[in-house]
Amino acid sequence: MKILVINAGSSSLKYQLIDAVDEHLIARGNCQRIGIDGLISQATSDGRKFKSNAKIASHKEALSMVSSLLTDKKYGVIESLSEIKAVGHRVVQGAEKFKQSVIIDDKVLQEIDSLSPIAPLHNPVHVGVIKACQETFGRKIPQVAVFDTSFHHTIPEKAYIYGFPYEIYEKYNIRKYGFHGTSHKYVSGKAAKILGLPLKTLKLVSCHLGSGVSICAIDGGKSVDTTMGFTPLDGILMGTRSGSVDPSCVTFLMEKMGLGPSEMFNLMNKKSGLLGISGVSSDYRDLKAAATSGNKRARLAIDIMSYQVRKQIASCAAAMDGVDAIVFTGGIGENQSGFRKSVCDNLKIFGVRIDDSLNDGMIQGNEGIISSCDSKTAICVVLTDEELMIAKDALRLIQGKKCNKNSKGED
Amino acid sequence: MKILVINAGSSSLKYQLIDAVDEHLIARGNCQRIGIDGLISQATSDGRKFKSNAKIASHKEALSMVSSLLTDKKYGVIESLSEIKAVGHRVVQGAEKFKQSVIIDDKVLQEIDSLSPIAPLHNPVHVGVIKACQETFGRKIPQVAVFDTSFHHTIPEKAYIYGFPYEIYEKYNIRKYGFHGTSHKYVSGKAAKILGLPLKTLKLVSCHLGSGVSICAIDGGKSVDTTMGFTPLDGILMGTRSGSVDPSCVTFLMEKMGLGPSEMFNLMNKKSGLLGISGVSSDYRDLKAAATSGNKRARLAIDIMSYQVRKQIASCAAAMDGVDAIVFTGGIGENQSGFRKSVCDNLKIFGVRIDDSLNDGMIQGNEGIISSCDSKTAICVVLTDEELMIAKDALRLIQGKKCNKNSKGED
Repeated sequence: MKILVINAGSSSLKYQLIDAVDEHLIARGNCQRIGIDGLISQATSDGRKFKSNAKIASHKEALSMVSSLLTDKKYGVIESLSEIKAVGHRVVQGAEKFKQSVIIDDKVLQEIDSLSPIAPLHNPVHVGVIKACQETFGRKIPQVAVFDTSFHHTIPEKAYIYGFPYEIYEKYNIRKYGFHGTSHKYVSGKAAKILGLPLKTLKLVSCHLGSGVSICAIDGGKSVDTTMGFTPLDGILMGTRSGSVDPSCVTFLMEKMGLGPSEMFNLMNKKSGLLGISGVSSDYRDLKAAATSGNKRARLAIDIMSYQVRKQIASCAAAMDGVDAIVFTGGIGENQSGFRKSVCDNLKIFGVRIDDSLNDGMIQGNEGIISSCDSKTAICVVLTDEELMIAKDALRLIQGKKCNKNSKGED
Repeated sequence: MKILVINAGSSSLKYQLIDAVDEHLIARGNCQRIGIDGLISQATSDGRKFKSNAKIASHKEALSMVSSLLTDKKYGVIESLSEIKAVGHRVVQGAEKFKQSVIIDDKVLQEIDSLSPIAPLHNPVHVGVIKACQETFGRKIPQVAVFDTSFHHTIPEKAYIYGFPYEIYEKYNIRKYGFHGTSHKYVSGKAAKILGLPLKTLKLVSCHLGSGVSICAIDGGKSVDTTMGFTPLDGILMGTRSGSVDPSCVTFLMEKMGLGPSEMFNLMNKKSGLLGISGVSSDYRDLKAAATSGNKRARLAIDIMSYQVRKQIASCAAAMDGVDAIVFTGGIGENQSGFRKSVCDNLKIFGVRIDDSLNDGMIQGNEGIISSCDSKTAICVVLTDEELMIAKDALRLIQGKKCNKNSKGED
């Protein structure tokens, strides 16, 4: 059962064609610099690779190119688009409306659009791409929205309400939503399997450490708190994002630098974090190399991130008043054994003991336990797979729909 | 040795006359609504009380009234102003310049003033009051500045650098400074005495919970991290302050509500926190009463504060990778046994066990241990006394100055 998973940004469109029953990746690709110049690439699981600089004017044009490439005689993987049984979309902001994944109809599409004011960089793009998919693949192919936020709908009020006047929450929907939900959900399930324990019994701290960073407290399979907030800016510093800062710095800097709200937002989202502190790069690997060569600010940026991760793991443990396992995922979490060690070596307070040999071996596509036998808190590395999660959610929903249609039950 | 301690705000001037050798409070008073209308009150340790509505045009005028009142035949406590051996000032922002308390000379005064851009609500007031004291008491009475920030100068770079471009730290001095330092220093020393253990061996988490709230990780007597940041706005929500929020909320709200930086700063500092969430009051006691009467938002505000305190205690414990004792101080910390219990009951992860009977008795001026014998982490209540700390610092400095003068040693 082939599902096309789409992860669209303002100038990019990543996709994967996945067999959701076999949990098998068939092909993956990326359209970049949409509306600027354009670059499209695709790789199939049998090793064929395509790459081309081609003008891509819009997401709709990108989708046409993807359709052609997937059905191409030389580089393609399907005979006809009708083989695609559903399209699953990663949607960033589902707010309080979407507590789970849904099949997209006109009402859902309108609701996703209605959340654009609180996700202006993301939801309008999703709406455009969904509409373009309806045109490209036809309305008969069901489309499913999987929200970054929906896993976090179980976060209690005491954790999601900010210290603003309550009317601001009511009027502007400003609260903690949390993001990376699909990843946190996926890795928590996988971690439970690796540990051989039922997810329902576990208190997990999931650390998604990539270009975006978020940490999530997962109690019995449910998110109870997370570091990202109203937007994916909050919490730990990231590749180019500042993470949490004293809110008065924002107004202070705007006044001193003469910046408007959107310029300040841009500064905090695009020019800060690892890049801003180091002045070197937003990529952890570049920073590690620079730090090794003696660059002090690169070293500082890494140290800050490690320190903040450690503090937030503790916060999450306090949120659940317990922690059975710490899970590392995302580009840094999956591959940077030194970073994992720097975090875990300073969590003796939770009885955390890392096994250096296991940790050093857990890179480049390996996953498993990296804590020593005497560690009171287990440590795992899990390879996240948001796209597979989206494909499986899409499969579950379209199969559920069929069942319901057959049984005339409720959707 | 009588020391006059002054704690000045933009429209207030609190003072205490303290015998710093005997550690004895002689009289305390408060000039309020300076520049608005005016209210002056004073109480002596032998029970005499004075209160009067009188126009107070300026801090200088307030100081004249204080001088008259302290030497008044009916309400006074001294014969002549010459009995005052030093004036100690609480100064909010000492930044990186002042790592300890100092005797104020023209250079120091100028340096305090030079920090006004990063403490516009506080340092200009301090400068004005110090100058007025020089005029009122004469230049022969030494004046000492004790900074809210200086106890935190031991916080390491990885904890005080924000995720902004590094140049912003260099150019605008934006970093975590931390506040309530005098209180955290005082209560950590007192807690060690109560515990009967050397401060140098202890990892303490000090929770100053009043109308302002900050938590401090104190390792061997040194501050290594704290929740307040560039200003006293950051960290946990407070009486009228929002505490930490996703920084993108700031720019988002400014855009939606059409607010300028200073209006937004005002919203976060004056209209948020317990007051903003509850819509009832900024005072914890009012909220507790409202919550008991069934007011849900008052209950929510209390729950949020308790939850955030719990998470930040854990963060501080992680910062030190250990916690021997949790110390409660400030109006809420010293008096609200229910609040302390709500925090400690959910910290089993650190082996915290509160003794309900000890906790319930530790109110209205009592201090001591409130953890049970089997608690792995001790819990203490300590009555903070910033003014005594300031008086003792002033005494130490003026005596040091005399010694140095006699021995012709360095100052």
